[in-house]
Amino acid sequence: MAGNRGVVYQGPGRVEVADIAYPEFVLRDGPGVNPANVGRQLPHAAILKVVATNICGSDQHMVRGRTTAPQGLVLGHEITGEVVETGPGVEFVGVGDLVSVPFNISCGRCVNCKARRTEICLNVNPDRPGSAYGYVDMGGWVGGQAKYALVPYADWNLLRFPDRDRALEKILDLTMLSDIFPTGYHGCVTAGVGVGSSVYVAGAGPVGLAAAASALLLGAAVVIVGDMNEARLAQARGFGCETINVAEGDPGDQIEQILGVPVVDCAVDAVGFEAHGSGKDAGKEAPASVLNTAMEVTRAGGSIGIPGLYVTGDPGAADEAAKVGSLSIRFGLGWSRSHAFFTGQCPVMKYHRELMAAILADRVRIADAVNAVAIPLEEAPQGYRSFDEGAASKYVLDPNGYLGAAAS
Amino acid sequence: MAGNRGVVYQGPGRVEVADIAYPEFVLRDGPGVNPANVGRQLPHAAILKVVATNICGSDQHMVRGRTTAPQGLVLGHEITGEVVETGPGVEFVGVGDLVSVPFNISCGRCVNCKARRTEICLNVNPDRPGSAYGYVDMGGWVGGQAKYALVPYADWNLLRFPDRDRALEKILDLTMLSDIFPTGYHGCVTAGVGVGSSVYVAGAGPVGLAAAASALLLGAAVVIVGDMNEARLAQARGFGCETINVAEGDPGDQIEQILGVPVVDCAVDAVGFEAHGSGKDAGKEAPASVLNTAMEVTRAGGSIGIPGLYVTGDPGAADEAAKVGSLSIRFGLGWSRSHAFFTGQCPVMKYHRELMAAILADRVRIADAVNAVAIPLEEAPQGYRSFDEGAASKYVLDPNGYLGAAAS
Amino acid sequence: MAGNRGVVYQGPGRVEVADIAYPEFVLRDGPGVNPANVGRQLPHAAILKVVATNICGSDQHMVRGRTTAPQGLVLGHEITGEVVETGPGVEFVGVGDLVSVPFNISCGRCVNCKARRTEICLNVNPDRPGSAYGYVDMGGWVGGQAKYALVPYADWNLLRFPDRDRALEKILDLTMLSDIFPTGYHGCVTAGVGVGSSVYVAGAGPVGLAAAASALLLGAAVVIVGDMNEARLAQARGFGCETINVAEGDPGDQIEQILGVPVVDCAVDAVGFEAHGSGKDAGKEAPASVLNTAMEVTRAGGSIGIPGLYVTGDPGAADEAAKVGSLSIRFGLGWSRSHAFFTGQCPVMKYHRELMAAILADRVRIADAVNAVAIPLEEAPQGYRSFDEGAASKYVLDPNGYLGAAAS
Amino acid sequence: MAGNRGVVYQGPGRVEVADIAYPEFVLRDGPGVNPANVGRQLPHAAILKVVATNICGSDQHMVRGRTTAPQGLVLGHEITGEVVETGPGVEFVGVGDLVSVPFNISCGRCVNCKARRTEICLNVNPDRPGSAYGYVDMGGWVGGQAKYALVPYADWNLLRFPDRDRALEKILDLTMLSDIFPTGYHGCVTAGVGVGSSVYVAGAGPVGLAAAASALLLGAAVVIVGDMNEARLAQARGFGCETINVAEGDPGDQIEQILGVPVVDCAVDAVGFEAHGSGKDAGKEAPASVLNTAMEVTRAGGSIGIPGLYVTGDPGAADEAAKVGSLSIRFGLGWSRSHAFFTGQCPVMKYHRELMAAILADRVRIADAVNAVAIPLEEAPQGYRSFDEGAASKYVLDPNGYLGAAAS
Repeated sequence: MAGNRGVVYQGPGRVEVADIAYPEFVLRDGPGVNPANVGRQLPHAAILKVVATNICGSDQHMVRGRTTAPQGLVLGHEITGEVVETGPGVEFVGVGDLVSVPFNISCGRCVNCKARRTEICLNVNPDRPGSAYGYVDMGGWVGGQAKYALVPYADWNLLRFPDRDRALEKILDLTMLSDIFPTGYHGCVTAGVGVGSSVYVAGAGPVGLAAAASALLLGAAVVIVGDMNEARLAQARGFGCETINVAEGDPGDQIEQILGVPVVDCAVDAVGFEAHGSGKDAGKEAPASVLNTAMEVTRAGGSIGIPGLYVTGDPGAADEAAKVGSLSIRFGLGWSRSHAFFTGQCPVMKYHRELMAAILADRVRIADAVNAVAIPLEEAPQGYRSFDEGAASKYVLDPNGYLGAAAS
Repeated sequence: MAGNRGVVYQGPGRVEVADIAYPEFVLRDGPGVNPANVGRQLPHAAILKVVATNICGSDQHMVRGRTTAPQGLVLGHEITGEVVETGPGVEFVGVGDLVSVPFNISCGRCVNCKARRTEICLNVNPDRPGSAYGYVDMGGWVGGQAKYALVPYADWNLLRFPDRDRALEKILDLTMLSDIFPTGYHGCVTAGVGVGSSVYVAGAGPVGLAAAASALLLGAAVVIVGDMNEARLAQARGFGCETINVAEGDPGDQIEQILGVPVVDCAVDAVGFEAHGSGKDAGKEAPASVLNTAMEVTRAGGSIGIPGLYVTGDPGAADEAAKVGSLSIRFGLGWSRSHAFFTGQCPVMKYHRELMAAILADRVRIADAVNAVAIPLEEAPQGYRSFDEGAASKYVLDPNGYLGAAAS
Repeated sequence: MAGNRGVVYQGPGRVEVADIAYPEFVLRDGPGVNPANVGRQLPHAAILKVVATNICGSDQHMVRGRTTAPQGLVLGHEITGEVVETGPGVEFVGVGDLVSVPFNISCGRCVNCKARRTEICLNVNPDRPGSAYGYVDMGGWVGGQAKYALVPYADWNLLRFPDRDRALEKILDLTMLSDIFPTGYHGCVTAGVGVGSSVYVAGAGPVGLAAAASALLLGAAVVIVGDMNEARLAQARGFGCETINVAEGDPGDQIEQILGVPVVDCAVDAVGFEAHGSGKDAGKEAPASVLNTAMEVTRAGGSIGIPGLYVTGDPGAADEAAKVGSLSIRFGLGWSRSHAFFTGQCPVMKYHRELMAAILADRVRIADAVNAVAIPLEEAPQGYRSFDEGAASKYVLDPNGYLGAAAS
Repeated sequence: MAGNRGVVYQGPGRVEVADIAYPEFVLRDGPGVNPANVGRQLPHAAILKVVATNICGSDQHMVRGRTTAPQGLVLGHEITGEVVETGPGVEFVGVGDLVSVPFNISCGRCVNCKARRTEICLNVNPDRPGSAYGYVDMGGWVGGQAKYALVPYADWNLLRFPDRDRALEKILDLTMLSDIFPTGYHGCVTAGVGVGSSVYVAGAGPVGLAAAASALLLGAAVVIVGDMNEARLAQARGFGCETINVAEGDPGDQIEQILGVPVVDCAVDAVGFEAHGSGKDAGKEAPASVLNTAMEVTRAGGSIGIPGLYVTGDPGAADEAAKVGSLSIRFGLGWSRSHAFFTGQCPVMKYHRELMAAILADRVRIADAVNAVAIPLEEAPQGYRSFDEGAASKYVLDPNGYLGAAAS
């Protein structure tokens, strides 16, 4: 059995790379493991040697100390790997397969999984529907920012890449299949993006950029990305998007400059509850501001896809209502325009196969779109820091040298 | 030319039946007519002798003085009639046809009408997408609680009943096609109600009861209606619904008593912004309370249809935020459950034909479900008053004696 | 280990009830077992004590000798049972559960299962996508017209009834969930049946009657069933359908008598390739006649759901083209009307849960609609014979006395 | 009033450009005009100065003498123009507007138009649902291969280009919006083409090439075009398609060479009933061969879009069955794979706006894809001839010099 190393949360603002246990076909007790999950047998699991595992914006919520994540939690839910061992219940994936892991853990047996709603699987998280690796309050599945990781229900969860060599050539693109590419795409699909659409994407972080790339892949005519970070906006312009700096004026006015009308067909909120105000409120948290802007700039009859995270409680919020997840939303505005709103985690499995096909056929360059940068696993702490400071990059950890990431 | 009489808004709390102008094929100036609409030629219109015209909950918003409706406004947007005259541009409906009029006025030429989104027609209301007869800020089209009424774009808007005699037999049912039956049905359709669904309908007014009847027509297994008005709840039980009195305890607990679980598959908000609190907040306006309850009682992955009206501004609201249409919504709760939310007016034309077929084939008894009561036009003021007091009835005005309504 | 008895195909026209092997967690060689499936380990399976198992029209194709079914094949793919044993890989169903088994065997791991297309599962039948119990060329899974039966991938395949007592009260209805109720319903759903539709169902056998009941459950306004068997037509009239005897005149003319127009909105072909001609061709096989009639009686823009079986080869067919599955279809007629055609087996799992909910809530009486008749297992041969002779009944075998079927 | 010139059918194999009547706001009698349409008043019409009008493959059916088209018929249903006059009933388009005309004539008032099914409008063709300009048995609306043309129900039918200068720059692309671009796109949409799909397009004529370009616009991973005309296949390769020459071997084998599997996800039949055999049957008409190939090369669960024309009767067909529109189809093969089939004319209006947006945003180069070639109106006869001989070009007539087509 090989040794294992992983990225461990050590309290607000602190992550480190440490020795961690090598996976077993049972879920052992540990930081954040739900008591009902302790000792759970996993004959259906596969153990992966991790090929690539990415730092996600939602990891930052924990690292910033905005959650109840326990010290010692192994982080990471964006995992691509090579199968090195399978449990006795695994039939259809085998050692040597290169695979993508959806960040949603799902059982493939419950009513929601059967309806393609793997983001709200009923059998993996004793607390509520839905789960993820290495995440607070998600049942205690060990994170994948590590050299080795375990995936339960492997026949169900894993997406096999059909050709190893081709996959390794495209691995920086394929690693985005575990979360942000499907997540951005889901935002667009639920927003009704199609051929000829005009689209507003709020947020130019990795999910926003993935949404913008998805919109183009879906045939959108014009994609407008809004943010306050100029480096990230430049990244969006680099693959054909229009951009607006929301700190520099009313979004509707800026959209009108581009389109001739102050509204788009479809909007995607790729920011979520940690939104900040602009103008005189610049810098302050304003958790409903992106939603309210989305309604203002979406035409009557349009839809709003909301992959950005909103939480049921936020102890660190700026006001009492937001602490219990209540936001002051201009709902009447949306109603007067017959808007539809789609929320929740992306069910990655619904989309990852078609997006893989698009990547392998060179129809989209998602790694370029999000500016993927491979770094050694041991440099994960620097990656977290740079990302938190607003770097226009998506950090991909390389725990086993598949990516040839050079130490900085 | 016949004389005309209609129901006229005379200021907060006051409606009266008065002489009004007989319709012409031009939109004349008058109370609430948008200047851009004054003098608009209507060769595409038909004039109807009104067979039945109903009092709607949304009329009450104006009559209670919660809007800027001008004195002198002729009310009424739920119209069923017999064609007595057609403009020179009308080809496919003719004198003698019995017809239902969608409350949404639409042109049948704009991009939204072409996409079946008649509730947000771009060509009838200079102020914003969408319009209705006899309503504040809707362009100034004259209301239909009258002996005669004009319908523009008649070939597009009118639904002809195929058999006059059969139609008159079922006229109390068919009159519900102009608004509340499609509106309740739209709430269900957008909420995803289908065969085997469990459904929660908030509100047992006419729209709520129509939603409940629609859910059963769509094959729902269990329909639970919530309200605080016992007479209206009794009405719901009369056609096979379960009910909960939301003043008597937590809705989730009461739903669990019925279903064994505290959540339903689909929820319909048939109340809107004039919601009131329950329990210790009983009687106070609590504009977000129905939405928040809907999220609490809808399972992960469920949808919420929101035909209940939310407004962009409400000068009479209880708090500053609600005055500009902002509500304190537990959006994080919905997000954590992957809820989808569907808002806006119902595009009646999308549904009225199939619902007519269901009525004519005796597959639904919508007049019974909402307890339709025909009264003479001249008794409209009493009808408004009774309805406002919570009568478990839907008042249908009989301006020309087709219904044989007896004076009370 | 209990002994086992089952219905065995013994050559054209002959079935008998015989001792058969008790199921094991491995697929043993036997009549019709695909070599690639021999020895397949089934730790994911459950063994059921059969509560009810029905004779299906598609069993008759084999029994009539129209297929290459091998002598010794244990028949039966409509299975309802009680779990008596589970393999080590089963987590979410347990001993004592009452369950319905979809006739489609599926793995719950392949791309098609993940897309709810369990009728074309890629991992259970080495010959082609899709499989079924006790059926020729379907991989060799043992049939369920027996006292005990095995279900692979039990966590995925089985639908658990939530309440044992309630289930046993409704067991004659619930047993239809394994095949004909979803199959008829699928025909309607693909044909676009909804509220207010007019529907033509070709064929008043059990699938046709199930389609008709489904259409009513979906809110259809008028359901017209066509057949040449008067007893079966009487059965259809018994639950609110209109009927036409296709031997007595042109279907379009007869439909016009009922509807006033010679076309319906939606058509369902519940007959398939063993269709017979009418009029001067009465009694002759006419494999395309139902499809051609369906196009004639469906309005422009309508859809045709085709749950009736069409085969890739039919050695016993009346003409050379039909022997290789080619039919002479008036495709130009369908094209000129923009028809859409939906073929293939029903993916039962997509529908069985919602239909179970409708049964348990008393919203549909499917056992009455198809005239379910329980008979002892040992009387299966008589059941096959009566059904083949056109009895207007659906025979439900009672191998273990749960149904209290009296010997005749 | 200006003089008018148009392309006139003069009997099998003969078209000529002749003086024709200038349009009036009434439908006058003439070759092929349905008696019920003679004298029809058209206050809702607009008269266009034709900017571009294309020769279509379906025109060739008439010119080859395969139909009952009368001598003297003015041809042409692909029309782009500038409004020069409007009837008194026209409100929303005006003189000077540049517009695209859907080839389907539709009223915008009937139940089918309201459901976006403009290809089967009930009010424009007394013979059957649906109509087109300049076409046999379509009611007698005058063709648009002319200097001036009339469009009824102009407010409904016309798509206005938002910017005149930009439109004229892109006019060779925009002229494809009247028919072949939406038609090819409709084939793809109904076939289920989406991001990551593999697609087979049968036929590399203009509709096939438009389907292939549409598939790429929709995000397809791999698009394979099949034909026997090498020049047309080269055209397909020019914009990123794979190709197979169906005369050179089994299509499934050739697809396997490209994809590694012998099947695609989605198939589009862009050929129709005038299909020819290949291999030993090369050159012979084989009207079902494309459909049968489509089933062979489409995976289980795939869909087949069929924009290629199939006719209800074909007096010139090679066999008796085909003369009445009956084809020998391997329907059992399709059924065993759960295929869905979508037939009929494309409802252009459903798609033209979004495709216009894609053109104007430079997201697709449809004129290049189909190799659009502008020629003077007077050279239409040569255009018909070249196209019939298999030229890999789409001929665009330039009746008024907007395109600057040089005489050859």
